[in-house]
Amino acid sequence: MEKFRMVFSGAGGQGVITAAVILAEAAVIHEGLIAVQSQSYGPEARGGATRSDIIISEHPILFPKVTQPNVLVCLTQEAYDKFSPIIRPGGLLLTDDRYVKLGKKVDAKQVELPMYQTVQDAIGNPVVFNICMLGVLIGLLGLVKAESVLAVISTRVQEKYVEMNRKALELGVSMAEPLGLG
Amino acid sequence: MEKFRMVFSGAGGQGVITAAVILAEAAVIHEGLIAVQSQSYGPEARGGATRSDIIISEHPILFPKVTQPNVLVCLTQEAYDKFSPIIRPGGLLLTDDRYVKLGKKVDAKQVELPMYQTVQDAIGNPVVFNICMLGVLIGLLGLVKAESVLAVISTRVQEKYVEMNRKALELGVSMAEPLGLG
Repeated sequence: MEKFRMVFSGAGGQGVITAAVILAEAAVIHEGLIAVQSQSYGPEARGGATRSDIIISEHPILFPKVTQPNVLVCLTQEAYDKFSPIIRPGGLLLTDDRYVKLGKKVDAKQVELPMYQTVQDAIGNPVVFNICMLGVLIGLLGLVKAESVLAVISTRVQEKYVEMNRKALELGVSMAEPLGLG
Repeated sequence: MEKFRMVFSGAGGQGVITAAVILAEAAVIHEGLIAVQSQSYGPEARGGATRSDIIISEHPILFPKVTQPNVLVCLTQEAYDKFSPIIRPGGLLLTDDRYVKLGKKVDAKQVELPMYQTVQDAIGNPVVFNICMLGVLIGLLGLVKAESVLAVISTRVQEKYVEMNRKALELGVSMAEPLGLG
């Protein structure tokens, strides 16, 4: 397995940090991997872009911050404008077409998907937008199994919400499949 | 302001990570401080003790992990047994008397409080136990203002739950006051 150095970015309320924590727990508890997940906040955090770093590896992780992600997710225009310059050449940049207008030249595979709209149409509740995003990453990269993510979610939400999360996760996986990067 | 290097530890479901994220956001967004908040998971994470690190400072933070916390919170026996040896000499160790039986000699101020029971008796819902714990830390250390924490909570929970969180936070602050460490 390669080492995944990821940055999830967006705005408060989009569930960026929650998605990062769930992914890290899934990797560690259910797949025997090692993970570090962090948030750094400086004066710029008052601007508005939320950023969460996750590293997943088979080996101990010495430095927990990500300087050049090979996976970058940007869920708002502000996050895209701010963080797209840091992507590692050849990395993967995932954006949502409702929130981000692409415009920068980046040396990366750019994947733009209607995650928000798909969740809204199929489930009617944008609260699981972040879980759909995790599904896309799983479908694109095979990071962890969808069942591992769902097992973590099941410990965190009331039982009546598990099915909605499962659906969002599966939507994400199925949106990624035709892209054939996995 | 001194630099606070904190470790919150407990079990999944006690809201340890959420409390750390809320505190970091309160410090940065409402108090102009700098914060880093992280989770590291290794093979030992499958054992059960959840650990979340938070550093709050007025100055840029170069290394985001905490090796020797000057503030250590242990909300389960397993977390106490595992992490109490790493406390910085002279630091503060906060435990809940329902979950942790003290027994180790540590070179620290030990504060043992009935946070869980107080929340259960006064509010009847243990879900805000973690917010009461934040209230205690605020009361003991004056880390940030209670209003700053509440402002962050207000952006994260539905309006109908804000009052319950406010009450839990105030309970924590009032439990700390007689101890006079602030």
